[in-house]
Amino acid sequence: MTSSVFGIGLAGCGTVGTGVIRALKRNGELIRERTGGTMTLEVMRVLVRDSQKTRDDMVDIGLLTTDWQSLVDDSAVKIVIELIGGTDLAFDIVARSLTLGKPVITGNKALLAERGPELFALSKLHNTPIHFEAAVAGGIPIIKTVQEAFVGNRMLALCGIINGTSNYILQRMSEAGLEFSTALAEAQALGYAEADPSLDVNGWDAAHKAILLATLAYGFPISPSQMNVVGIEQVKPLDIDFAKQLGYVVKLLAVIREHDNGAIELRLQPSFVSKSHILASVNGVFNAVAVHGDGVGEALFYGRGAGQDPTASAVIADLVEAARTLAKGQTHRGFLPWRENGRIMPIEETSTAYYVRFDVTDRPGVIAEIARVLAEHRIGISGTHSPVNPENPDAAFVDMVFLLHSCPYGLLQKALKEIAALACVNSYPVVFRIEQL
Amino acid sequence: MTSSVFGIGLAGCGTVGTGVIRALKRNGELIRERTGGTMTLEVMRVLVRDSQKTRDDMVDIGLLTTDWQSLVDDSAVKIVIELIGGTDLAFDIVARSLTLGKPVITGNKALLAERGPELFALSKLHNTPIHFEAAVAGGIPIIKTVQEAFVGNRMLALCGIINGTSNYILQRMSEAGLEFSTALAEAQALGYAEADPSLDVNGWDAAHKAILLATLAYGFPISPSQMNVVGIEQVKPLDIDFAKQLGYVVKLLAVIREHDNGAIELRLQPSFVSKSHILASVNGVFNAVAVHGDGVGEALFYGRGAGQDPTASAVIADLVEAARTLAKGQTHRGFLPWRENGRIMPIEETSTAYYVRFDVTDRPGVIAEIARVLAEHRIGISGTHSPVNPENPDAAFVDMVFLLHSCPYGLLQKALKEIAALACVNSYPVVFRIEQL
Repeated sequence: MTSSVFGIGLAGCGTVGTGVIRALKRNGELIRERTGGTMTLEVMRVLVRDSQKTRDDMVDIGLLTTDWQSLVDDSAVKIVIELIGGTDLAFDIVARSLTLGKPVITGNKALLAERGPELFALSKLHNTPIHFEAAVAGGIPIIKTVQEAFVGNRMLALCGIINGTSNYILQRMSEAGLEFSTALAEAQALGYAEADPSLDVNGWDAAHKAILLATLAYGFPISPSQMNVVGIEQVKPLDIDFAKQLGYVVKLLAVIREHDNGAIELRLQPSFVSKSHILASVNGVFNAVAVHGDGVGEALFYGRGAGQDPTASAVIADLVEAARTLAKGQTHRGFLPWRENGRIMPIEETSTAYYVRFDVTDRPGVIAEIARVLAEHRIGISGTHSPVNPENPDAAFVDMVFLLHSCPYGLLQKALKEIAALACVNSYPVVFRIEQL
Repeated sequence: MTSSVFGIGLAGCGTVGTGVIRALKRNGELIRERTGGTMTLEVMRVLVRDSQKTRDDMVDIGLLTTDWQSLVDDSAVKIVIELIGGTDLAFDIVARSLTLGKPVITGNKALLAERGPELFALSKLHNTPIHFEAAVAGGIPIIKTVQEAFVGNRMLALCGIINGTSNYILQRMSEAGLEFSTALAEAQALGYAEADPSLDVNGWDAAHKAILLATLAYGFPISPSQMNVVGIEQVKPLDIDFAKQLGYVVKLLAVIREHDNGAIELRLQPSFVSKSHILASVNGVFNAVAVHGDGVGEALFYGRGAGQDPTASAVIADLVEAARTLAKGQTHRGFLPWRENGRIMPIEETSTAYYVRFDVTDRPGVIAEIARVLAEHRIGISGTHSPVNPENPDAAFVDMVFLLHSCPYGLLQKALKEIAALACVNSYPVVFRIEQL
């Protein structure tokens, strides 16, 4: 058999890029054996911002370049891996690669969530695939599963814990009773959260992934502006305690669900998940996605969502896919949206039960006032509770919790706006969804 | 775009075959959209044993034939799906299809576990793939995951619950305290167990799947004779109760693990699994496989292991894969063993801790006698217990339980043989592994 060498241009040599180089050195021979004995994946060029920086021993500094165009245009480079992040230079690199007919592998969820439609159009035009398994839940092959393994299924729903940092923070708040800020600081100290953790805790990292999953499942481009996103900054230990008492755990949950009228529910928020659901057992920095297909029924995929080696593993799977396809003449087996548009359900129309926490001034009549507004909007109450602060039982300002029956989110917001205007209510109420999974 | 029609020969029209026909009718248009708008998958012929039998409305009786060769040889048939089961006629159908260059999709784990090496040799010779996602844990894309998604990983271990019938029986024994035979009868009444449940309860259904997983992960053919298999027939409610007290659940577990010397541990038996491990939460007829790769780390895949629609979903994923490959000229992207042989670790060399139940005649000195033999073999005891039968506290024959420290299985068996020969021991001891996952 003849050997086929696939030259790779690696744009970005941070944690994941270095992981790719290391994995190819460690397991290159095994990959060759598994794929028929002839495939050699060889990094030819590496794009970096600073060619003088000290790098991992495995990185051949002779391959480094700071000129992205020379990397993409190099005739020895047949496949381009984009791992530099951001949405500007990354866009240029991916776009030019596709234009040259060079398959692209990327882990850049922000790029795809924000500029996916442009890139998929180029991918189609130039019959050249973009692979992006590394962009969603690194160690979990959820892209391949939705796109290939479940290709025969109408997707009824996908629900997932797809941000490990926030999941770790929520778990530590739950098991150690920590405040959000303390748990975040701990996550940063352990390297589970970035110095700037905003995208993790405000939900947008997970939201970008949810947008990609929804596009994969339903085949049309979705803009970030169509998605309702709530982060975990407002979660308090008392919310988590209350959830526990009711048999729930609090998870930052992406919910994607097709309704009978064809509208797609798409949202991300802290949710109460029943303790008996397998998603409730997903702890620490792990990710999980529960998929419900009309054929397969319920399935769940669990693994590490980030980190050098798990993400590199996803990049390499895509690399092998791209190389196998190139080997026999280009065919497009990557993802392409198959319809121009679909309907995202307005967030106001989505219905769940709710847990709502009010910051109130403690005086007789508070519950009656809140309950009256809810009643006027025909929103049912299944319980109310005001946790006593043992350190200050006569505190003037207290948290008051209401559990509400299922109703449209729009209706709830109308009621909450009125309630927020009451004299006894000191700030806008905090809402958690109680999910029916 | 031109339309590509892929004619399918469907050999077998039982539960899963009918499910494939139904799924193609239900979701054929969606599959076409998802795969670029041109792929039509059309069943051209259906092989049945009895062409007069009443069938699902969706089955076009004009396509039925009882002549397998005319189905395989039909020039309109480009892809063959084998779902008739057994290892003789099924072998002939698969072998002839491969010889004619027609890709094969099968869900026949017994065929592949017993005659895989012959079929993979034909697959290689004729450059024509065999796809078999439906053969292992139907609703879980574990074949695709091991072969493609984790292609860049050295597989450290795969542990799985891959027989739903036995998992259901064990769960019912656990939650309702049922005897094995009662739980089995219940499973049969609910349609979860066949009239002849022997392959489910004696472990061989799961063992065939484990052999396929090990072959996929390590690349060499493995014969069923190389595998140690223990079923669940000997599990008693008292074992399950005892496991609970110790913080474990009893699961019929397939364990596949590579050791540092390259030997592959491969076994299937009722095992004690820690309650805190996510595999312990896998209940009812669900399956799950935990995979440990050197890159991805720990991952877990959970879903329905059998049933009409989940298994049909797996067949259709393979069908799309086969059609996509055929569309651009044959390339072999299916699995092929990549080495002729590897080393399966003799079961005697495998080490775990153990739970051993002895059926003894109750008289003073019994524990001392058993403990003496264990000590002579240098096997450590971490605990002993003899559950009192509340209905007959002075029973002459009782169950006596020993918990043993980790030691090689061969050493344990030597000791147990001696113990079984003691006058106070009435039958051969029953052994469960205590797993370190």
